[in-house]
Amino acid sequence: MNERVREILDWYRTDNPGTLTNLARLMNHGRLGGTGRFVILPVDQGFEHGPARSFAANPSGYDPRYHFDLALAAGCNAYAAPLGFLEAGAAEFAGEIPLILKLNNSDSLYGGADPSPAITGSVDDALRLGASAIGFTIYPGSALRNEMYGQIRELSEEAKRKGLAVVVWSYPRGSGLSKEGETAVDVVAYAAQIACQLGAHIVKVKPPSAHIEQAAAKKVYEKERIPIATLAERVRHVVQAAFAGRRIVIFSGGESKDTASILDEVRGIRDGGGFGSIIGRNSFQRPRSEALDFLRQVMDVYAGKTK
Amino acid sequence: MNERVREILDWYRTDNPGTLTNLARLMNHGRLGGTGRFVILPVDQGFEHGPARSFAANPSGYDPRYHFDLALAAGCNAYAAPLGFLEAGAAEFAGEIPLILKLNNSDSLYGGADPSPAITGSVDDALRLGASAIGFTIYPGSALRNEMYGQIRELSEEAKRKGLAVVVWSYPRGSGLSKEGETAVDVVAYAAQIACQLGAHIVKVKPPSAHIEQAAAKKVYEKERIPIATLAERVRHVVQAAFAGRRIVIFSGGESKDTASILDEVRGIRDGGGFGSIIGRNSFQRPRSEALDFLRQVMDVYAGKTK
Amino acid sequence: MNERVREILDWYRTDNPGTLTNLARLMNHGRLGGTGRFVILPVDQGFEHGPARSFAANPSGYDPRYHFDLALAAGCNAYAAPLGFLEAGAAEFAGEIPLILKLNNSDSLYGGADPSPAITGSVDDALRLGASAIGFTIYPGSALRNEMYGQIRELSEEAKRKGLAVVVWSYPRGSGLSKEGETAVDVVAYAAQIACQLGAHIVKVKPPSAHIEQAAAKKVYEKERIPIATLAERVRHVVQAAFAGRRIVIFSGGESKDTASILDEVRGIRDGGGFGSIIGRNSFQRPRSEALDFLRQVMDVYAGKTK
Amino acid sequence: MNERVREILDWYRTDNPGTLTNLARLMNHGRLGGTGRFVILPVDQGFEHGPARSFAANPSGYDPRYHFDLALAAGCNAYAAPLGFLEAGAAEFAGEIPLILKLNNSDSLYGGADPSPAITGSVDDALRLGASAIGFTIYPGSALRNEMYGQIRELSEEAKRKGLAVVVWSYPRGSGLSKEGETAVDVVAYAAQIACQLGAHIVKVKPPSAHIEQAAAKKVYEKERIPIATLAERVRHVVQAAFAGRRIVIFSGGESKDTASILDEVRGIRDGGGFGSIIGRNSFQRPRSEALDFLRQVMDVYAGKTK
Amino acid sequence: MNERVREILDWYRTDNPGTLTNLARLMNHGRLGGTGRFVILPVDQGFEHGPARSFAANPSGYDPRYHFDLALAAGCNAYAAPLGFLEAGAAEFAGEIPLILKLNNSDSLYGGADPSPAITGSVDDALRLGASAIGFTIYPGSALRNEMYGQIRELSEEAKRKGLAVVVWSYPRGSGLSKEGETAVDVVAYAAQIACQLGAHIVKVKPPSAHIEQAAAKKVYEKERIPIATLAERVRHVVQAAFAGRRIVIFSGGESKDTASILDEVRGIRDGGGFGSIIGRNSFQRPRSEALDFLRQVMDVYAGKTK
Repeated sequence: MNERVREILDWYRTDNPGTLTNLARLMNHGRLGGTGRFVILPVDQGFEHGPARSFAANPSGYDPRYHFDLALAAGCNAYAAPLGFLEAGAAEFAGEIPLILKLNNSDSLYGGADPSPAITGSVDDALRLGASAIGFTIYPGSALRNEMYGQIRELSEEAKRKGLAVVVWSYPRGSGLSKEGETAVDVVAYAAQIACQLGAHIVKVKPPSAHIEQAAAKKVYEKERIPIATLAERVRHVVQAAFAGRRIVIFSGGESKDTASILDEVRGIRDGGGFGSIIGRNSFQRPRSEALDFLRQVMDVYAGKTK
Repeated sequence: MNERVREILDWYRTDNPGTLTNLARLMNHGRLGGTGRFVILPVDQGFEHGPARSFAANPSGYDPRYHFDLALAAGCNAYAAPLGFLEAGAAEFAGEIPLILKLNNSDSLYGGADPSPAITGSVDDALRLGASAIGFTIYPGSALRNEMYGQIRELSEEAKRKGLAVVVWSYPRGSGLSKEGETAVDVVAYAAQIACQLGAHIVKVKPPSAHIEQAAAKKVYEKERIPIATLAERVRHVVQAAFAGRRIVIFSGGESKDTASILDEVRGIRDGGGFGSIIGRNSFQRPRSEALDFLRQVMDVYAGKTK
Repeated sequence: MNERVREILDWYRTDNPGTLTNLARLMNHGRLGGTGRFVILPVDQGFEHGPARSFAANPSGYDPRYHFDLALAAGCNAYAAPLGFLEAGAAEFAGEIPLILKLNNSDSLYGGADPSPAITGSVDDALRLGASAIGFTIYPGSALRNEMYGQIRELSEEAKRKGLAVVVWSYPRGSGLSKEGETAVDVVAYAAQIACQLGAHIVKVKPPSAHIEQAAAKKVYEKERIPIATLAERVRHVVQAAFAGRRIVIFSGGESKDTASILDEVRGIRDGGGFGSIIGRNSFQRPRSEALDFLRQVMDVYAGKTK
Repeated sequence: MNERVREILDWYRTDNPGTLTNLARLMNHGRLGGTGRFVILPVDQGFEHGPARSFAANPSGYDPRYHFDLALAAGCNAYAAPLGFLEAGAAEFAGEIPLILKLNNSDSLYGGADPSPAITGSVDDALRLGASAIGFTIYPGSALRNEMYGQIRELSEEAKRKGLAVVVWSYPRGSGLSKEGETAVDVVAYAAQIACQLGAHIVKVKPPSAHIEQAAAKKVYEKERIPIATLAERVRHVVQAAFAGRRIVIFSGGESKDTASILDEVRGIRDGGGFGSIIGRNSFQRPRSEALDFLRQVMDVYAGKTK
Repeated sequence: MNERVREILDWYRTDNPGTLTNLARLMNHGRLGGTGRFVILPVDQGFEHGPARSFAANPSGYDPRYHFDLALAAGCNAYAAPLGFLEAGAAEFAGEIPLILKLNNSDSLYGGADPSPAITGSVDDALRLGASAIGFTIYPGSALRNEMYGQIRELSEEAKRKGLAVVVWSYPRGSGLSKEGETAVDVVAYAAQIACQLGAHIVKVKPPSAHIEQAAAKKVYEKERIPIATLAERVRHVVQAAFAGRRIVIFSGGESKDTASILDEVRGIRDGGGFGSIIGRNSFQRPRSEALDFLRQVMDVYAGKTK
C-alpha cells in the first residue's frame, strides 16, 4: 500500500481493522487513489433544497443513477447521499465506488434560525447498502447543536464498532452566529475542532474567510499573529485545528460558480495542506461532459499535475 | 465494471447491496480481478492439522503476517483464515486484500468418525476485522451435519443482513459415507447442492472422482448417461448441481503435490466451468518465490493465458 | 499500599473493587502517587473555548499526543479530555497514564445565560479507551441543571457497575446566580455537596472567594461564625461540605496567570485540606519546559517539599 | 408478627411479598417497632438547602455516617437520604437500619415559582444499597407536576416489581397555589389523595392548617360541616383522604423550633390517627444528646407513653 | 514505557486501547515489570483438586487473602483465581496487583475421560472486580472441546470489546490423547496454536516433553528435523507455534517439587524464548518465606540475573 495512505491510517490506531479498511477504501479509490487526497461527490440537495432547485439545471440529476455514474466516471474517491438516493442505485453499482450514507438531513419546507436536521438513516442501513462510511451534519452555533452532538456520538460509537468510517459535515450556523460568522476563520477552525473531538475520522468544512467572528478569539489571533491573509494560510490554520493535521479535513466547493475561481480556491486548499474537496452542485448541475472536465481539473490540482 | 462480474452479481439479486458489494470486492481484487474467476489463499491448517504439519516445511508460515503478504503478492482474490490468524494481521494489512473469516474449525487432537467443528468466530468479528465474507465448513455425511446446517443458516442470515458474503466449504465426510465416497461425483454434486440450498454465495468443494457412492444415484447417472469420464465433465456436472451454474463453485487444491498435476487439475476445473481454486498447503508450504511462481501459473490457466 | 491511599479508599466502601481499583490507580500514579494528593491535566478547552484560544499560545498543543506526553512527563496523576483527544492517543500511550474520559462538553459558538453541555462520550467508550474514570460537568444554577443531574446519575450508575470511577466538575453558573456568585464560598460549598450527593467519587470545584451569594446562607455563615477569611479557611469549609472530607475535592487552577500567585493559591488549597489541583491552561499554554517546571513546583507544594 | 402490622400489611394485598416484606421491615424496626407508628429521619437538606444552612449548626452532620448513627441510636424506623449520603455509609451500616433512597431532589441555586426536582437515583441504586424503599417528592400545584407524576409512576412500577416500598413526599407548591394554600387543609388532603392514587405505600405531607384554598372546595367543607377546627380533626380528615386510612400517612415536623410546640403538634397528629412523623432539621441540627432526647419524647407520644 | 513492552503491544494492534492498557498493566507490574517476562500466581486448585489437597500442606492458603498477599510480596505480574477467591479479597487489595478472573473451572468430584469445565464467572464480574484479564481453560483432546472453544470465542469477543485481556490455559487432555501425549511436544505446540487461533492474548501451556504423540506429526518432525532434544529447543518450537513468537506464551510449573529441578526447567523456558511461568502449587504449598525465596529465584532467572 502507498506510504501516504499507511501514514494517514496510522493516525487512527484506536480504530479497529474494519474501520481502517474502510478508510483505506476511501483513500485508494479513483483518480486520487493512493495520494491521500480526496474529491468526493455529495448529493443531498434534493432533500436539503428541493428537487427543482437542485436538478432542473441538469435534469439528468433527477435520476439517482446519474450521480453514481458521474462519481465513478469522474474518478471521485466516494459518493455521498441520503438513504433514498443510495437505495436507488446501490445494487446496480455495487462494488464500483465507495459510498457514504448521510444519516441526517434538513429539508427547507420549514424554516427557522436554528437548523435541526432529521435522522434519515442508520448504521445498519449503511451496512446493508455496502457503504464504507456514515456521514452526519452538525450545526455548531445552532440552539439545537447539543442534540446533534449527542446523536453523532451515539451513531459514531456504533459505526466504529461495526467497522465503518465516520465523516462529519461541520457547518456553523444558527442563532449563535452572524451570517458572516458562518465562514469566519475562527469559527471554521472551531467547527473542525468540535467534529474531531466528537470522534470524526474525516471532517468537512467550508473554505474559511478572513473574518473573525468572536471577540475573545480575535484577541488571540492578533496577539499570536496567526497568519490568515491568504486562503492557503487559513486552510493551514484549520488543518492545524484538526488535531495538528492528524485528522482528514476536506472542504466544500462553496457557492462560487465559475470554474476559474473554484480552481483558485482548490489551489489554496491544496497549498494550505487541505486533504481535498467535496463538490456537489458545481458538479451535478453542469452537463455531464463539462462536469467530468471540471472534476478532472480539480483532481489535477490535488494530484500536483497543475499549479 | 466488468460485464462478467455484473453477470455474476445478477445471480444474487435477492441479496442486499452490501453483500453484492462484498461479492464484487472478492471478484475485483487481484490478478484475476474482473474475470469472474477466483484463486483464494486459505490458511486454517494450523488449527485443523496442527502447526508443525502445516508450517514446518516453510517456517515463514508460522508468522500470521506471511500469509497476508503471500496472498497479496500473488494477486489472490482473497485470504481466508480463522479468527486468531486474521486478528494478528488485519490492522497492519487493513484495506490491502479482501478477507474471509472462517467461523468454524476442527482440530485433530480428537478423532472420531463424524467431524464436528467448533464455532470459532462471529459475524461481528468479521465486521470489526474488515472481512468481506464469512467462511463456514459443513460436513454432509456426518452424524452431526444438522447441527452445522443450523449454525450456518443462522450465521448466514446475520451475515446477509449486515452486508457480508457467505462462503461454504462443503466437505462430505462422516459415518454416512465411505472414504472413497467423500469425493464421489454424486456426493460432491450433492454437497454443492446442499451448500447452495443453505444459502451460500460461494461454495467450495473437492474435485470430484468418477466414483459414484450412492446406489440410488448410480441408477440415475447410468440411466441419464450423465457424462463423468473426465474431470472437466465432472466439474461441469457439479457446477450444474450448483443451481445451473448460478452460484459460484470453487475447488480445493487437494493433496497432489507436484505442480504439473495440480495445473492439470486446474485446467480440468477451468474447462468444466469451475470458478476457481482455493489453494492452501500447495501455496504456503512452498518457499515464497516458488509459491508465487506456482500461483501465477494457476492464475494464468484461469485467465486463459495458457492452455 | 500506602496507608493514606487505603484510608481514602475506605471512604468508598459501597463501591465495587473495580471502581476502588481505578480510584487507586489515580492515586498511585505520578509524582504524587501514594500521597492522596492529585495534580491532574485536563484539556477540554479545544472544545469549550475553541482551538486558537486554547492552543495558539503554545502550538504544540494542537497535537493530541502532546498532552498525553506532557501529563506523563510532568508526573500528573491523570489526563482528562473529551472523546476525540483521547481516541487520538490512547493506543499509542496505552498503559502509560490513567485517563479520564470527559462525557459532556459545551462549545462556545452558542451563548446563553444557562450553560447546557452536550453528551460527547459513553461509559463503553471509556472502557474501550482504557480510561480509569468518567468525567462530567454539572452547572448548578443553570435552568438546565436537572437535565445534567439526571444524566450524570445514569452515567454514574453505569460507570460504577462497570468498575470505573466518577469525577464531577461542579461549576455553578447560569441565570440563578450572579457572576460573582459563581465562586462565592457558599455556592462553591453547595456545588461540592451536590456533586457528592449525586454520587461523585472526586469533585472538582473552583477556589472559593469570600463572597456569600445567598441571603439564606449568609445568615447561617454569620450566626455560626464560619471562618472564611483566608483561602485555606474557605477550602476547609468546602472540603467539609464534601461529606466532612470523606470525598476527594480538587480545585481548578483558575485564570490567574503568573506562577507565584498560582503557587500561593495551591498553598491555600493544601493548607485547607484540599486534595489537589486540576490545571489545564496554565500548563499546556506554556512552553513544555516551563510547564514541566511549573507543575513540579505545584507538586512540591502538595508533597510538602516546599512551604 | 404483631397484629397491627399484619392489619396494615393487609391494606396492600395487591403488592408482592417482596414489597410487603420491606413494608414490614419499616414497621418492625426501632423503638416504635410493631406499633404501626413511624418516626423517620430524613436528611436531604444538604442537597435541598445547601451544606452550611443544613449542617453548620451541628457540624457533625457534615459527615454522612452521623445520620445513620443518629437514626439508629434514636430508634427511628428508617433513615431516608439521597444517593450520595446513602452511598457514603450503606456498606458500613449494612443491615443496621432500614433505608429509604430519595430518588429526586431540588437544589436551591436556581429558583423559580415552580419547583422541579432532578432525578438523582434509581431503583437499582436502591437495591444495590440495600434500601427498603424508594422516596420521591411530588409538587402538586407546580406547572411541572405532570412530569413528576409520570416519573414516580414509572419508578413506582419498577420498585414494586423489584419488591421495594414506595414513599411519596407530597408537597403542594408552585404557581397554582398561594403560599398559605400550601398547607391549607383542602390542599393537603388533596395532595395525600394524589399520592395514594399514584400508588404510594406511604405518604408524607405537612401538618394542615385550617385555611381552605380552593373556592370550590370551601363550599363543600362548609356545606358538609367537615370538622377542621383542631389539628387532630384536620389530620383525621387528611388520613380519611388517604383511602379511608388504608394508606400510611406521616407528617413532617415543619419548621417549628421549640420542643414543646413540636410535641403538641405530634399529639395532634397522633390524636387524629396520623401514622407518625418524619423529622429532619429538628433532629440533626441539635447536638446529638439533645436530638436523642427529643426523638425519644416524640416516640413516647406515638407509643402512648405520654399524653 | 519500556521498549520491549511497546514491542509486544505492537503485536496486538487489532485490539482497542483498553485491552492494550490491561496487557501493559500485566507487563508493567512486579519484579519483572518492563522486561516482557511474566511470573503469575494462579490459585484454582481449591476448586480443581479440593481444599485439603490444595491447602493442607500450608494452611495459610485456606484464606483467600493469603494468595493476594503472596503474589504481591513476591512481585508477581498478576494473580489468577476463580470468582470466589477474587471476591474474597478484591476490595481489600484493590489496585495492588493485576488480577485475572478464571471464568471456567472443573471440580474433581465427578470423573470421566473427557474434562468439561463449568462456566464460573463472567466478563462483567471481571469488570466489577477490577480484573485486567479473563482466564479460561480449554482441553484440546477432550470429546467436549468444541463446547469450550465456542465459549471462549464468545467470552473473548465480549472481553475485547470491554477492554480486557484474554488468557487461555490450553491443556491437552481427554479421550483423544494418551496420558503421555498430554505433554508431547507436537501436542503442546498444537495446543498453543489452537489458543492463539481462538484469539488469546496470552497462552499458558505445560512444558513439553520430547515425546511425539501423533503419527502424522511424527513424520513431519522427522522429515523437517525440528530440534526437540532439549527443553529450550522444545520451548522454542512451541513459541514459534504461537504465531512465530508474536503471542505471549507462558508455561506452568508442572509437578516437579524440588527447587533445583524447577529452576532448571525455568532456565530451559527462558533459553527457548518462553515468556515466563505460572506457578501455583509450588508457590502456595510452601511456607511463605520459602515461597518468596523460591519465586525470587525464578524471577532472577527470567530477569537474567542468574544463569
